[in-house]
Amino acid sequence: MTLIGARIPKLDGPGKATGETRYLSDLEVPGMLHGVIRRSDRVHARIVSVDVSKALEVSGVHAVLTARDIVNVPFGHGKDNTPLKGDRVRCIRDEIAAVAAETESAAAEACRAIRVEYEDLPPVFTVEDALKPGAPEIHAGRAGNLPFTYDYAHGDVAQGEADSAHVVEGEFVLQFMTHCCMGTSAILAAFDSEGRLTLTSLTQVPFLYRRDMAAIVGMSPEDIRVIQPPIGGAFGSKLDIYPFEPIAVHLARATRRPVRIVFSRHEEFVSSPTRQPMRVRLRSGCDGKGRLTFRDAQLWLDNGGYTSWGATTPFVMMQTFSSLYRVPHARFHTKVAYTNNPYSGSFRGYGNLQATFAVESQLDLLAEKVGVDPLELRLMNSQETGEKTGQGLEFVSCGLRDCLESAAEMSGWRAKRASPALKGNVRRGVGMASMLHVGGGAKIYRSDGCGSVVSIDDFGKVTLVTGSTDIGQGSETVLAQMVAEVLGVAMDRVKVINSDTDVKPWDVGVHASRTSYVAGNSALLAANEAKAKLLTAAADLYELPKGELSLSGGFIMRGAEKVDALDKLVRTLHFTGKGELLVTHSYFEPASVKQDAGFFGNVSPTYAFGTHAVEVEVELDTGQVRVLAVSAAHDVGKVLNAMSLEGQIEGGVVMGLGYSLTEELKIREGKVLNPSFRDYHLLTAPEVPPIHFKAIETEDPSGPFGAKGVGEAPAICVAAAVANAVHHATGVRFTELPLTPERVLNGLIAAGVVRDPLA
Amino acid sequence: MTLIGARIPKLDGPGKATGETRYLSDLEVPGMLHGVIRRSDRVHARIVSVDVSKALEVSGVHAVLTARDIVNVPFGHGKDNTPLKGDRVRCIRDEIAAVAAETESAAAEACRAIRVEYEDLPPVFTVEDALKPGAPEIHAGRAGNLPFTYDYAHGDVAQGEADSAHVVEGEFVLQFMTHCCMGTSAILAAFDSEGRLTLTSLTQVPFLYRRDMAAIVGMSPEDIRVIQPPIGGAFGSKLDIYPFEPIAVHLARATRRPVRIVFSRHEEFVSSPTRQPMRVRLRSGCDGKGRLTFRDAQLWLDNGGYTSWGATTPFVMMQTFSSLYRVPHARFHTKVAYTNNPYSGSFRGYGNLQATFAVESQLDLLAEKVGVDPLELRLMNSQETGEKTGQGLEFVSCGLRDCLESAAEMSGWRAKRASPALKGNVRRGVGMASMLHVGGGAKIYRSDGCGSVVSIDDFGKVTLVTGSTDIGQGSETVLAQMVAEVLGVAMDRVKVINSDTDVKPWDVGVHASRTSYVAGNSALLAANEAKAKLLTAAADLYELPKGELSLSGGFIMRGAEKVDALDKLVRTLHFTGKGELLVTHSYFEPASVKQDAGFFGNVSPTYAFGTHAVEVEVELDTGQVRVLAVSAAHDVGKVLNAMSLEGQIEGGVVMGLGYSLTEELKIREGKVLNPSFRDYHLLTAPEVPPIHFKAIETEDPSGPFGAKGVGEAPAICVAAAVANAVHHATGVRFTELPLTPERVLNGLIAAGVVRDPLA
Repeated sequence: MTLIGARIPKLDGPGKATGETRYLSDLEVPGMLHGVIRRSDRVHARIVSVDVSKALEVSGVHAVLTARDIVNVPFGHGKDNTPLKGDRVRCIRDEIAAVAAETESAAAEACRAIRVEYEDLPPVFTVEDALKPGAPEIHAGRAGNLPFTYDYAHGDVAQGEADSAHVVEGEFVLQFMTHCCMGTSAILAAFDSEGRLTLTSLTQVPFLYRRDMAAIVGMSPEDIRVIQPPIGGAFGSKLDIYPFEPIAVHLARATRRPVRIVFSRHEEFVSSPTRQPMRVRLRSGCDGKGRLTFRDAQLWLDNGGYTSWGATTPFVMMQTFSSLYRVPHARFHTKVAYTNNPYSGSFRGYGNLQATFAVESQLDLLAEKVGVDPLELRLMNSQETGEKTGQGLEFVSCGLRDCLESAAEMSGWRAKRASPALKGNVRRGVGMASMLHVGGGAKIYRSDGCGSVVSIDDFGKVTLVTGSTDIGQGSETVLAQMVAEVLGVAMDRVKVINSDTDVKPWDVGVHASRTSYVAGNSALLAANEAKAKLLTAAADLYELPKGELSLSGGFIMRGAEKVDALDKLVRTLHFTGKGELLVTHSYFEPASVKQDAGFFGNVSPTYAFGTHAVEVEVELDTGQVRVLAVSAAHDVGKVLNAMSLEGQIEGGVVMGLGYSLTEELKIREGKVLNPSFRDYHLLTAPEVPPIHFKAIETEDPSGPFGAKGVGEAPAICVAAAVANAVHHATGVRFTELPLTPERVLNGLIAAGVVRDPLA
Repeated sequence: MTLIGARIPKLDGPGKATGETRYLSDLEVPGMLHGVIRRSDRVHARIVSVDVSKALEVSGVHAVLTARDIVNVPFGHGKDNTPLKGDRVRCIRDEIAAVAAETESAAAEACRAIRVEYEDLPPVFTVEDALKPGAPEIHAGRAGNLPFTYDYAHGDVAQGEADSAHVVEGEFVLQFMTHCCMGTSAILAAFDSEGRLTLTSLTQVPFLYRRDMAAIVGMSPEDIRVIQPPIGGAFGSKLDIYPFEPIAVHLARATRRPVRIVFSRHEEFVSSPTRQPMRVRLRSGCDGKGRLTFRDAQLWLDNGGYTSWGATTPFVMMQTFSSLYRVPHARFHTKVAYTNNPYSGSFRGYGNLQATFAVESQLDLLAEKVGVDPLELRLMNSQETGEKTGQGLEFVSCGLRDCLESAAEMSGWRAKRASPALKGNVRRGVGMASMLHVGGGAKIYRSDGCGSVVSIDDFGKVTLVTGSTDIGQGSETVLAQMVAEVLGVAMDRVKVINSDTDVKPWDVGVHASRTSYVAGNSALLAANEAKAKLLTAAADLYELPKGELSLSGGFIMRGAEKVDALDKLVRTLHFTGKGELLVTHSYFEPASVKQDAGFFGNVSPTYAFGTHAVEVEVELDTGQVRVLAVSAAHDVGKVLNAMSLEGQIEGGVVMGLGYSLTEELKIREGKVLNPSFRDYHLLTAPEVPPIHFKAIETEDPSGPFGAKGVGEAPAICVAAAVANAVHHATGVRFTELPLTPERVLNGLIAAGVVRDPLA
């Protein structure tokens, strides 16, 4: 193989580096109007009246819409959201009216001119309050503010308790965090003269989006075309439909003009989805040697005012509670409660950062109780290839043990763990944590497949039309590599087309770390069929045994001998005899199953594993935690593109470090206190520590070239490893994120490690 | 059948009617510069010097290119043209320099500021002069100004002469005519940051264009993507590459910016291709009863300064000389000579208007000699289905006899022919003429095929990706109809994608009346495969005999009973079992052959026939010819879309009437005298007579639903029919076009029909 595993720059890199790439915010179409949304000033109130008369007087305004002007179809996972809010607002994001105008400033001015009269309702800001008897009902008819609960169990937790020599219990509190995509939320809606709708949309799931949007705006899905422009970051944030999207459609319909909405950065902080905040109460047990006996988890998720994908993170979290290491008995109960806070969406890791933080923190506690090194306890409980977990997850390849050993080795674990280093008032420690995540998609819909069309033109140029979506993760590049590898051509001979639902075949979308695996397998099917056609044709033409032919360097080869140039053979097929174009198509459906009502079943065809060992330095006087190094080992099945993989790992680790140390969208009484990059502390480049990475190649039998998905993996276990390292350094266990200096210092003071300087 | 033969409006109609359609001249891309070309002031001169210094001083200018600045690769059918002219200009269009600037006006100003010093060379303006010994050599090394000759013969003309009772001989002179596309010539060339080139181009032949352009601009064809925007008319004019196109590429390369060139209307008249002007000397004979014995044709074509497709019109013309009616012996000799006139390209009919004018004028002369009605003479010589002509053309379906009878009947031929009507100084007459043209493409390249991909999405929406190109002729609509008919869905369920070489499969392009036939057959192959998949799946699923199932109204039917909805079945296939997407692909190569060196061979799988009977009124005092009615009967194989067909017929007839009566691009000493719509007389709507049309359905066995191509046919025999009608009305034979009042009055005076009012 010449391309698989190589370091290949991203195909979209040069365009992005040179500024050539045009994002949706760069796109102006003739006649386009700008949409701006008037949002709520209150977190929970009855809307008494909305007066748009002054807004209509603003020059350049074409339409001002309120809930009265549209058919306001409920949508979302809980069918509890509407594009515009008519009677009541439930959170600070709420969309009350929308304006389309010739300029963005005119639309904004008109929005400000809208008079809204409210009557405040009693607000609810915590899950605890929301679930109290008699709490204000945030959605009429949703009794007790409890739209969803999740219950899962395998084995018998009582038996597990009985089998335990040690049990630890604790509560973990996870914060709001936001995606901070460099490109803010945006959409362009345009009807053509026959009433068909083209949505230039940042969605990660164009085919599902098309179906769902059709229902919301009262159209037939086949009349909607979704075009995906280059996307300035997604990370899960574009998995759902949000109110601004149907609002753009309604504005376009009302004005008969294309309407574009682009969020301001402030709006992006306040009104885009967040990582799901929650409280996790976990009990874990093990026997005298450290073998895990049970886990019993209770979770309370703050659903905010409406339901988006954040409410479904328990699907993923329960896998970690049930199946990260061997757990004979496990139980999982989750309540998702409405509050008047912002609502959460999907975010790289999808609940798994939260679950892993709890689980892996308690593994260290158990190791301490047993008196073994945390690495040893983990190795003792690690699964192997071929195992099936209590939840029915089947590990057809499993490199967890290798990940543990490799992360330990890279970090100098055994030496550093033996004696936490002290340097004056600065303490050093190492901690580790592992992760388990789906590695080949997740069959949460009836299909988790992807279609592909491969064609080779007369000049040997290969086009892959894939159903999959590139949101910056590099799938275009990796898919091109796979096709180029199979067909024995250079990378620059392959073009990937993936951004238009009118052109590309179906795919479920980009989520669940599925693209390399599912779209990769799909592309391989089509590429291999093209290869077979070429080899058969060459064998016939030159009367050679097909089995001895191969494709390499743009040629059909027999051993080291060139039989024909690939492009020449394609032309021969095209221009002689019956005439044939090299076009093949495929559809790949992974061998996963939808879980049953008890959440049992092998939801992904393969799983990703990883271990991070983190070394930290804690400044006792200030509570400042500095990460000195992250040593990350990941079971990736097979390295497809070493450069792209490193990018994924590094990006994920940095995102995990932000979650661990600095990032929090601060919500107080439903309002966002830090809606700017100045106050929302993203890690900056100088703050990023060295990241050591080792890829564990387990050569998954079902993966494309043996690969499995790794898109979400590297973000998942950072926080637990950091917290374990801080504990190693200071002896203090932190169960709430992020580990800001303030929080750490207070923790150190409370634990008596340092004196309160103010005392 | 529910859709085939119906009156279905064009899919692109609403967009064009509402102004929604964006042509290339409406397209602005970020950073785009405007290109303007400095052309020659002389028709034949040495370029002594080109001084661009003042041009470079114009504000907003980014680049000024002359031949010295680029690698000036020869191109075109004669490889005698270059993008920019360095040493010599040979016609008034010649491109000496090009400017790219921020605005079109800055670029134009800079062009004007370029100083060119010439040294005049002796010019040549007629073919006769060009072929004289010692004539100035227009291209060095092209001896005698004779780049091409064409010789064809079948039978033995001497024997034909010997068999003849009557022989007529004459000379016909055909004028320059220009396409008058509503959208002028234009191109947008843009390199991306990796050096790949996207050409937004009006080309009719995107795949050939890509290959040829690559050679001209020194690139690899697979690095060029051709996107075809909506095209404001083509009619053959966009079949070749013209200098402005590589010039745009060179400007884009020099400036590293996208560069657009859009011709002004003046430039379009002066510098776009024309219909091939020529002189035709023809001898035709028949026996005593009127049966044709031979044709002997000599043609002289004015090639102008360079060679474009006009020089290849003899390929088509010889078919009419050899095979329009039964001709036992035929000979054809053509000389194509360089002059310092503008050069000609491809134009709907491709030489056949010229050839048919001569052939059909002489048929009337022969009828007169024999003393039979021209209709009878034509019927006597008409071919039948199953005949093979002397040139090897095989008429698998032939409705010529029906066309003759129908045109006669519609026009009231027999009554009107008997006695030309007189009304004071106004005389009326009827004339007829027939035509033969390829009806399923022409295999002039190694392949004349087309690829298609048909897919059906989860909502039953059908996408046809076709290699073919719609230049306004309505192929999108007709192809959608065919696919909708096969799949039993409504028209609005089918989307056609056809404008991007990165997406669509190969096709030779739109010319030779091939799209309905070739792309239609290709689409049918893919649609029928999709249908078979659906019926097989339904038969399996519902345990029904497949042979009893059909597709209709969006359902799988068993007789009148609905078995399943089509979209539901597609979803079932997608979401259950092994998972399958409905995608099929096809490649159709017509059963035609490339002709041999002697131009013998069945170049098209089927042929189109037609007859026009025209009634005219000639005002003797003024020479004004008014067409009262055109009765057109065309063998179309099968009507696919009655409305679209009528549009083609009417448009073609009007184009033919313009050629007959008013249109001439007047060239004097190489210069264009009438480069504006005011002076170039296009027929206007009030001048268009009633057009009666009858479609003859011969149900071609190889055609899609029995159809054959008809795109060019209706323009072809108008002029001959008009001239024959004028002869019938006045007794005067006109052999030169157009029949302007001046020409007709002079002819009437010369023939003594009227007195010279100035005498």
